Amino acid sequence: MSIEVVGLTADPERLGYVFGGREPVLTVKPGTVVELATEDCFGGAVRGVDDLPSRVCTFPYLNPVTGPIAVEGAEPGDTVAVHFVDIRPVRDWAISTTFPHFGALTATHTTAMLHDALPERVWRYEVDVDRWVCRFQARSSEFSVELPLDPMHGTVGVAPAANEVIMSITPGAHGGNMDTPEMRAGTTAYFGVNVPGALISIGDGHCRQGEGEVCGTAVEAAMATVVVVDLIKGATTPWPRLESADHIMSTGTARPLEDAFRVSQHDLVGWTADLLSLDILDAYQLVSQAGLAPAGNVVDTNYTMLAKFPKNLLTTTPYADIHTRLRATATTYLSQR
Amino acid sequence: MSIEVVGLTADPERLGYVFGGREPVLTVKPGTVVELATEDCFGGAVRGVDDLPSRVCTFPYLNPVTGPIAVEGAEPGDTVAVHFVDIRPVRDWAISTTFPHFGALTATHTTAMLHDALPERVWRYEVDVDRWVCRFQARSSEFSVELPLDPMHGTVGVAPAANEVIMSITPGAHGGNMDTPEMRAGTTAYFGVNVPGALISIGDGHCRQGEGEVCGTAVEAAMATVVVVDLIKGATTPWPRLESADHIMSTGTARPLEDAFRVSQHDLVGWTADLLSLDILDAYQLVSQAGLAPAGNVVDTNYTMLAKFPKNLLTTTPYADIHTRLRATATTYLSQR
Amino acid sequence: MSIEVVGLTADPERLGYVFGGREPVLTVKPGTVVELATEDCFGGAVRGVDDLPSRVCTFPYLNPVTGPIAVEGAEPGDTVAVHFVDIRPVRDWAISTTFPHFGALTATHTTAMLHDALPERVWRYEVDVDRWVCRFQARSSEFSVELPLDPMHGTVGVAPAANEVIMSITPGAHGGNMDTPEMRAGTTAYFGVNVPGALISIGDGHCRQGEGEVCGTAVEAAMATVVVVDLIKGATTPWPRLESADHIMSTGTARPLEDAFRVSQHDLVGWTADLLSLDILDAYQLVSQAGLAPAGNVVDTNYTMLAKFPKNLLTTTPYADIHTRLRATATTYLSQR
Amino acid sequence: MSIEVVGLTADPERLGYVFGGREPVLTVKPGTVVELATEDCFGGAVRGVDDLPSRVCTFPYLNPVTGPIAVEGAEPGDTVAVHFVDIRPVRDWAISTTFPHFGALTATHTTAMLHDALPERVWRYEVDVDRWVCRFQARSSEFSVELPLDPMHGTVGVAPAANEVIMSITPGAHGGNMDTPEMRAGTTAYFGVNVPGALISIGDGHCRQGEGEVCGTAVEAAMATVVVVDLIKGATTPWPRLESADHIMSTGTARPLEDAFRVSQHDLVGWTADLLSLDILDAYQLVSQAGLAPAGNVVDTNYTMLAKFPKNLLTTTPYADIHTRLRATATTYLSQR
Repeated sequence: MSIEVVGLTADPERLGYVFGGREPVLTVKPGTVVELATEDCFGGAVRGVDDLPSRVCTFPYLNPVTGPIAVEGAEPGDTVAVHFVDIRPVRDWAISTTFPHFGALTATHTTAMLHDALPERVWRYEVDVDRWVCRFQARSSEFSVELPLDPMHGTVGVAPAANEVIMSITPGAHGGNMDTPEMRAGTTAYFGVNVPGALISIGDGHCRQGEGEVCGTAVEAAMATVVVVDLIKGATTPWPRLESADHIMSTGTARPLEDAFRVSQHDLVGWTADLLSLDILDAYQLVSQAGLAPAGNVVDTNYTMLAKFPKNLLTTTPYADIHTRLRATATTYLSQR
Repeated sequence: MSIEVVGLTADPERLGYVFGGREPVLTVKPGTVVELATEDCFGGAVRGVDDLPSRVCTFPYLNPVTGPIAVEGAEPGDTVAVHFVDIRPVRDWAISTTFPHFGALTATHTTAMLHDALPERVWRYEVDVDRWVCRFQARSSEFSVELPLDPMHGTVGVAPAANEVIMSITPGAHGGNMDTPEMRAGTTAYFGVNVPGALISIGDGHCRQGEGEVCGTAVEAAMATVVVVDLIKGATTPWPRLESADHIMSTGTARPLEDAFRVSQHDLVGWTADLLSLDILDAYQLVSQAGLAPAGNVVDTNYTMLAKFPKNLLTTTPYADIHTRLRATATTYLSQR
Repeated sequence: MSIEVVGLTADPERLGYVFGGREPVLTVKPGTVVELATEDCFGGAVRGVDDLPSRVCTFPYLNPVTGPIAVEGAEPGDTVAVHFVDIRPVRDWAISTTFPHFGALTATHTTAMLHDALPERVWRYEVDVDRWVCRFQARSSEFSVELPLDPMHGTVGVAPAANEVIMSITPGAHGGNMDTPEMRAGTTAYFGVNVPGALISIGDGHCRQGEGEVCGTAVEAAMATVVVVDLIKGATTPWPRLESADHIMSTGTARPLEDAFRVSQHDLVGWTADLLSLDILDAYQLVSQAGLAPAGNVVDTNYTMLAKFPKNLLTTTPYADIHTRLRATATTYLSQR
Repeated sequence: MSIEVVGLTADPERLGYVFGGREPVLTVKPGTVVELATEDCFGGAVRGVDDLPSRVCTFPYLNPVTGPIAVEGAEPGDTVAVHFVDIRPVRDWAISTTFPHFGALTATHTTAMLHDALPERVWRYEVDVDRWVCRFQARSSEFSVELPLDPMHGTVGVAPAANEVIMSITPGAHGGNMDTPEMRAGTTAYFGVNVPGALISIGDGHCRQGEGEVCGTAVEAAMATVVVVDLIKGATTPWPRLESADHIMSTGTARPLEDAFRVSQHDLVGWTADLLSLDILDAYQLVSQAGLAPAGNVVDTNYTMLAKFPKNLLTTTPYADIHTRLRATATTYLSQR
């Protein structure tokens, strides 16, 4: 098996702050392995506990994404698949912070209140890739604890529909900043194509994050990431979907959070009905008893919920089993690296 | 008093479907009167009860706006003022419709449900500008009733911040499709400037609409509209504001609807504190007892609420009394027309 | 015309803090005029700017309501009408306050955040019934301004369905603490009956309030109030409705606020369809163009929106024109007082 | 170790449909094992696919709970613990249904819309306790699949505060119908005490449910359940909490769903800060990176979210390690049964 492998650095000219409206920095054939570098959501400007992001970062130059990558032959009405082969922190430290008026447990610009902002605080995590852990160090006490690495990308998506250009921090039907821990190595993400080439961008690597990304940032890190990019002609995907070894997953991104839940469940019910040849009410019933519903983010300009269904209940494979083929490509690639 | 008056037609090359990302079609000096034409939200394609919008309109070519108009000297950090002098339906008919999965009392793409869409139905209103009425004719019975005209623009705004390009049907901090009946002749709208020239676009004229725009569309009409466009240097306006003869008004646009309410009230409390030299809690108290809070739209991709405060309780005038000067310009213009 | 008039004091044994679960303190025939006294929402314990409610009030003994009043013959499936004849502050002062973690622009117990509470502050208004004004006095400056009186009751309702007992501060399908300025003299309120006698309670008088009751309290006052209580056999009323000289109004109480909006508009569309013999889509259309949608409260444990429709567009009268008869009773009563 | 064991049947006189307002049917000492029977949410009235719940059930006699059980010595300001030892379906069948205007993907009474209800449909599951599975049988096709049993109780709680009486289908700060799959055997649930004796009621057994309980009902079954009931004097618990072998969990119940999320995360952050002696921002940070956030229910009159934190990161045990002692009691009980 011959695999085409290309690289994509995170040089400033390859970073964007929006989805849509940008020319591709790389064009690949379906099935290509892309080794890409991503910066952290602060653009690398926060390096220690005294680097308050409100001082060292400049809106709207936050949350850089690497790309966009055009996929040859991708047209509106198709689906692109992004299979994560490897996501690996490149520094021995990572950063998390509170940020004024951002997060789930603070007044924000849309949940507008008369409170002053919560204090802005930076946490610097030590990252040990060999031991596959990162270390939380409390700022107000000596407490410290190791957490397992579970690297993932908060921001993955394609150019939006309707000629829109959307900030990289805003998730939506095009993907973007969904901030779900499920976007880890071994997972395939599916996106509906809105423009020729699809124009995939990836960024916002996290050493790990909790569900909901409660304080607004995860353990943010620059990443060396490997993906396989592929194309499924003629398959529509209205909202981003994920597939892991064990689950198919629909995402929903909206406000209020119950609408994000509804979107994700509605998509999963329809998808499951298709895969099991059930009518919609039977699929609704089965998803209701067998599904999982974790939060993605409840902090960004839109919220994201996931709806998960166990693959062992399925009798057919989604998207003609592309996930299995992409895993095979990943295995070959890793064995040759 | 000499007034500069320019015209702007609704030719296809002057219509856009987004805010942001477009070059100006007209550049004017502050204080200029602009006579502009706008198409209806269907682009004029729905002319009778058999023209179902899902058949005769093509997404995303909905809700055309005329513009953008650049204002000389407008820079980020400034505010532009758009004073509505006259809004006049140009045809003797207007259209309202339900639209599949759009509206407040139907499942939508984000309030996703398993229901089939409600029936798509078109209502054609007779418009009599001389008598200043439009006529509702029921589709399922002989019932018919005249409603007073109260023409307004659903969509008014500027280019968004952060290099975003946003569909004209989506309201936000840049204005856009707020769909409030307060955007009528005699009102001044204020927008914070995000890009040089501000880039004002206007569309979506309504012969009238109820608060909330419940079914998703108003009495939609092409308009001959006259505005005065002006510039307030060095004044920031975080969310669109309105001023009428009797009220100052803050808008808030967000989901869920209570966040739209919070944004509008938060802005009004701060604005009132400034205008009355009150501390924020005193302003919070006074707005709580004297304010009004009507819905704008509860159907679009974002919802809009208004927060109104009576001007007779104010001791100073907002934006250095530009509203009074714009009304004087309007009076002069109308007397010379 | 002979009118039966009975009195009801606000003695502690006639005050309750819940809807449901209490025996009637008065039983009246339909058509009876009731002269009743109500305490303010603080139970009269806050008398000056140093009486912080969190110190002088004791949860759950807040927001006392006078009643319940049983209506002879009222059974589940009927509707009771409460027509407000007169609402008159009984003291020459009234109180408004912020309260920790209560209000629209603060973190609350359900919109839970890590912020400390906003400062608790008391405003004491001078009330001049002769001149029909109350005076706002800023706490942090010399600013002072008179506001017109517009007396109303924040809390009016009946015993809930399903054997529930609900705190008087919580609005719902049974009415309760809807906090809409529309509940003023001249208005008739309609409630569906859930238990024999209906069990009406009234409290929480306001000298006036803005829409939304933004800071969480209005200009709170003890009231001398006169109502006519009546019964409409066999008429169901799923959510509280109001009728004034000019409008019929449906209320909706729920969270998020768009659900309160949906409930109110859904009820108004159905009601209008009935009154105009329209099918539901024609009524949806007409309400969308002719209706108003002000906020009631956006601060209580449930939010309330109103949906208003102008009576001059109706061809029949709601509830067999009981509003007109109740106004006649009110006129007779007032002429004899 | 001597264990006191008492039984409690599900006779009609021991079933209630509310939390609060009822006398205890059993009073136990702290540490008592209670073997109790519960009916399913339909009161056993739905036995086959032709028993539509809207016909065979009568509102408000839905969702019966067994109890209330008074705990000797429990006073407001204390916490009661309910440890689930065993939950076992008692019939060889179980039921799930859609129900008109109830569920996450349908218009409801509060998310009010003009759609007709979705079809009402009943699914009858075969339950095999020996093999610990239940079988889904599609209604519109031959498809059938086994799902593992994961028995739990949807409804567990205490009498509410403020003299309220709340329907058993409504979750809140008192617990009630939270509908989380985490309420399974091996879990301890903690509730703040609002009235003397606490007055615990339990019902709504599910053979299993997905997160969110999307269609509105789970695999509903009558249960033979064993709990240990205990008392923690002087410990307050503002919202229900759970503890399993691996996680501590806070619940939040509110609308919109982001408020349920906020409540649960706010409680978990405070709880974690206490257990790790962290300041609140350090706890906010740690929970953000290490927590899980699954949906409980997104269908009931209030929504429930969970916030989970891994116990292996804790340095102290919650509630003085009562969970370990209750598990020991459970082990002893099971060895003696």
